[in-house]
Order: sequence, then C-alpha cells, then structure tokens
Amino acid sequence: MATQDEQGGRHRLDVAVRWGHCDPAGIVYYPVYYDFFHQAMETWFDRVLGVPYRSVIETRRIGFPSVHTEADYHAPSTYGDRLCVMLAVSAMGRTSLTFALSIEGPDGGLRVSGRKTVVAMDLDPASPTFRRAIPIPDDVRGRIEAFGIAPAAPA
Amino acid sequence: MATQDEQGGRHRLDVAVRWGHCDPAGIVYYPVYYDFFHQAMETWFDRVLGVPYRSVIETRRIGFPSVHTEADYHAPSTYGDRLCVMLAVSAMGRTSLTFALSIEGPDGGLRVSGRKTVVAMDLDPASPTFRRAIPIPDDVRGRIEAFGIAPAAPA
Amino acid sequence: MATQDEQGGRHRLDVAVRWGHCDPAGIVYYPVYYDFFHQAMETWFDRVLGVPYRSVIETRRIGFPSVHTEADYHAPSTYGDRLCVMLAVSAMGRTSLTFALSIEGPDGGLRVSGRKTVVAMDLDPASPTFRRAIPIPDDVRGRIEAFGIAPAAPA
Amino acid sequence: MATQDEQGGRHRLDVAVRWGHCDPAGIVYYPVYYDFFHQAMETWFDRVLGVPYRSVIETRRIGFPSVHTEADYHAPSTYGDRLCVMLAVSAMGRTSLTFALSIEGPDGGLRVSGRKTVVAMDLDPASPTFRRAIPIPDDVRGRIEAFGIAPAAPA
Repeated sequence: MATQDEQGGRHRLDVAVRWGHCDPAGIVYYPVYYDFFHQAMETWFDRVLGVPYRSVIETRRIGFPSVHTEADYHAPSTYGDRLCVMLAVSAMGRTSLTFALSIEGPDGGLRVSGRKTVVAMDLDPASPTFRRAIPIPDDVRGRIEAFGIAPAAPA
Repeated sequence: MATQDEQGGRHRLDVAVRWGHCDPAGIVYYPVYYDFFHQAMETWFDRVLGVPYRSVIETRRIGFPSVHTEADYHAPSTYGDRLCVMLAVSAMGRTSLTFALSIEGPDGGLRVSGRKTVVAMDLDPASPTFRRAIPIPDDVRGRIEAFGIAPAAPA
Repeated sequence: MATQDEQGGRHRLDVAVRWGHCDPAGIVYYPVYYDFFHQAMETWFDRVLGVPYRSVIETRRIGFPSVHTEADYHAPSTYGDRLCVMLAVSAMGRTSLTFALSIEGPDGGLRVSGRKTVVAMDLDPASPTFRRAIPIPDDVRGRIEAFGIAPAAPA
Repeated sequence: MATQDEQGGRHRLDVAVRWGHCDPAGIVYYPVYYDFFHQAMETWFDRVLGVPYRSVIETRRIGFPSVHTEADYHAPSTYGDRLCVMLAVSAMGRTSLTFALSIEGPDGGLRVSGRKTVVAMDLDPASPTFRRAIPIPDDVRGRIEAFGIAPAAPA
C-alpha cells in the first residue's frame, strides 16, 4: 500500500482506506489521519533520509514525539479510497522539526492539510535526560538539510 | 472510567490510559488524544446537553465531523495515568461548533490543550444535502447556549 | 465508563460503545472486542487482585502477552450500547493464565464470548530471559487462587 | 505496503509494523493482528476475487462480519518488522466463509496463525433481513470456488 516518489523535498506515502479506518458515517474517523501523518514521518526516515526509524528508536534511543499537531479537513474520505500523503519539512530547530502535510484523494483533490511539530526525545531510561528534548543528531540534521526545508506548505 | 462534574460551561470526562493507548516509547500515542477529544464531545451530548449522540446520528441523521483539530502536547502521559478531559464551547456558528479542550494529569498538570471545530453534516443518503453542512438544529442550539459559550480556552 | 461488581471469581468492566469503535456497517469493529478483553484483564489486576498492572509492568518488569485468543460473536453491538465485560479465570499453569470472557448487552443478552490465554513474559532487556516466558510470581499466584479459578466458562 | 503473490488458493498481503501498532512492551498489540486478518480479507476481495469489497458494501449492500475468530501467537513482532499475511479459504457454507490465516516474519518464521469465520450480512436498512445472515451471492460463490477451498490450514 505504499509507493514513493521523492523530489524537491517531498515524501509521498500511498495508503488505502480500510474498513477499520472508517466510522459509522462511512468516512475516515479523523484521528486516523494523524496516524497517517505519523506513518509518513516513519517512512520518510526509512526511505528518504536513509536512517531507519527503527534504528533511531532502538540503537540511538531517540524518539520524535509530537509537541503540536493540527489538521484541516477539506473533504471526507470514504471506504476504499486510495489516498496520497505528502510530507515536506517546513522548519528545523535545534531539537524540533516541523512537517507540512497534505492528503490527496485519487482525483488529486485536497482532503486534509496539516502540520506536525516533533522534538527529539531521549528514550534511554538510564540517561539523565530521559524523556527530555535533546538536539537532533548532526548526521540526521545534515540529511534533512539535503532533503530540503521548504518554509511554505506543500499544498 | 467516566465521571462528570459540570459547571460554568465545562464538561469533564475521566479516562484511564490503557495498554492499547500507548506506544513503544511507553507514552500515549498522540492520535489517541484526538479520540479522547471525540469521546468528550460524545459524552457532552449524552450527559450535558441531554441530546444523546446516538439519537443525533440515528434519529436526526446528523453527524458532527471535524473540519479543524489541533493539539499542543505539554507533557507525556504514561500507562496507567488517570486523565481528565475538559471540554468547553468557545464558538458557535450557523453550522459549526468550536470546542476548547484540555487534558490534565492526576496531579492537575496540563498534558494536552487543543481545539476542535465540527460542522453539522447531513447523514441521510436520501437527502439532497447528503454529506453537506447543515444548520445546527434550533433545539440543540438552545441547549448549547444554556450550557454556555466561553470565548477563552478552558486552560 | 467502568464500574465493578466482583463476586464468585468474576470481574466486571462496563464499557460504552464509542464512535471510534464502530465501522461503516454501524457495528463494533470486531478487533475492538479484543481490546475490551485486554481492558478487562488490566482492570482485574488493578481492582481485584490489588496488583496494579502498571506496577507489574514497570516495577516487576513482567508483561502478559497473549498466546491464544478467540471469540464468538453472537449478536452485533451498535453505537451507544453499554456493554458489560465479564472475566473469570478458567485455568492457571506455571507460566500461563487462561481467562473466560463474555460481553453482554444492556438487556443482558450475550454479544460475545471468548477465551484468552496469556503467559508471564520477562520485559527486562537486561535479563537473560528477556521476552521469554517466566513463572507467574508466587504472590500473584496466591491472589489469583483467592479470586477463584473456575474451569467452566462464565457464560 | 502491499504486494501480492497468488497461487494455489492463497492470497498474500505484506504489511509493515508501524509505531501505532505496538505497545509499551515494544511488540505488536495483539488485537492489531485481527485488523491485519481483516485487511487480508479486504484485499482478497479486491485483488483476487475481482469483486471490490467497496462494491460489495456499497452496491450490493452486503457485509461480512465475523462470527468466530481465533489466533495463536507463536512469536512476537516488533517495530519495523515486515510481515506477510497469508489467507486461504478452508470452508464455505451457504452463508458463511472460513479463512485460515497465518502471519510470517521477514525470515519466514511463523508469528501468528488463526482462523476467521464470517457470514454474509444484509446491510440494507430498508430490507426485511437487515443485519441478518443471507446467502453468499452465486457469482461470488463461483469466484471463491475458482480461487480454491483448502480444508487444511495454510501454515
């Protein structure tokens, strides 16, 4: 359910709307879009940055929890729709990253646009900074700069 | 897992952080907070407005999908935490409602603050306005005004 | 959303069917019942055994992952239903526990019956038995025996 | 996240273990596997039977809710694992279908094996048999027979 088409600082994740994503109104239950946002970030680490998210978590012991998320829902998505989640980086601070996200329907129409700011967080229980914000590692920072930081939203 | 303590235009829903809410970092996976926001709206209809959400959906054939949601995450919540979700109404338009939401930990500390705007949507497939925004019914509007509309956020 | 009424080796958890639990057919999406089963186990540790599940995980570093689960769905549950999840212990081995579970609707009618076998698992990454089955601790075993082990299903 | 490789009455769905699938023990939360089972059924309708599940639901107004599900968990799956879900049909009755399911890890090792029985259910609120079991339509039955019914489990 995932392909990619990376250029100009955009990462694309294709997702299909499954039965378990929808509510009794027959449309995607809105918290699910935030899960799609997270999946876009995960696959961006894996496929674009070349720093598998698994290794970030397990080897480097760093997580990227959200400190702010938001979304505007422009049109509902229904069961069976094939959606395209687009991710760009709109800002990078010492410890934080802000993503601009948009979700398009099969016809290219905008379904959801959003924003997500995460911070690098120390996941090592033995560390004095456990569950605190820490600087984004230099090599990851370099790869993100190479990917491209676009202040404007992707939509 | 739910009690209520309604006064001055606030609705409170107590929720416990369950195993299925948490991620491998040991904290609540952030989309879950949006599900808590929705649960707060559902129980507000049921317990405070006196208009069960079930009857809104099944009898009136009206849904309240989100058009905008956002959240700031101030502190992580971990397994077993007992959280208190507070909901207030910060604005009401012809078809839309905006909620101010906050989630507090057992010590009263702010964990999450957020905002959610929904619109009344026609759920009747036989209606010419199916899946379009429609005015909030007058009786519901009256009950919301009686509950209280507070422009400022609850936090 | 939770009350309790413990006697004769049964634990009861009340849950309300929320919007996010239901699928486009308007009924509870079946994997959700397994989440309810898990919640029943969690609250049984907390409220009945007097061994908070949080302390089991965080202090003792023991988890109880499932090795077998099953469910029969006798009647659908729809949005707004108030369900009662009943848990009994049907067997206890050296490392394993088997629960008999049933879910009843507001009219007492049987909605779901099921079974869940879990094993005590070492969650300490520093331990030689990390992610392996380990004996149920003696004090927990004693409390489970005091609660009662009923070979027959609760329904 | 999905490929297919259909032969001899087996359907295969590839899924990646995402952050939102895992619990604080760092492994897939067991109800999620049942969602994977459902996704395998959905994609089997779409890609193998050539009867898109969406058309089954929306045009024919038929659902396939579960009446029985079960799973044995042989080994845990952790974040980032790429899993392969295999589906075969082990029995077909007048209104029911039984699937044999297995989930393998990237090394081909068995992670989960399971079974799922569904019944064709009338989803048309205007029908006298609304939410009751109905016969599997003849054309769908023919396609399932062509796919192959294998009494033994796929594993």
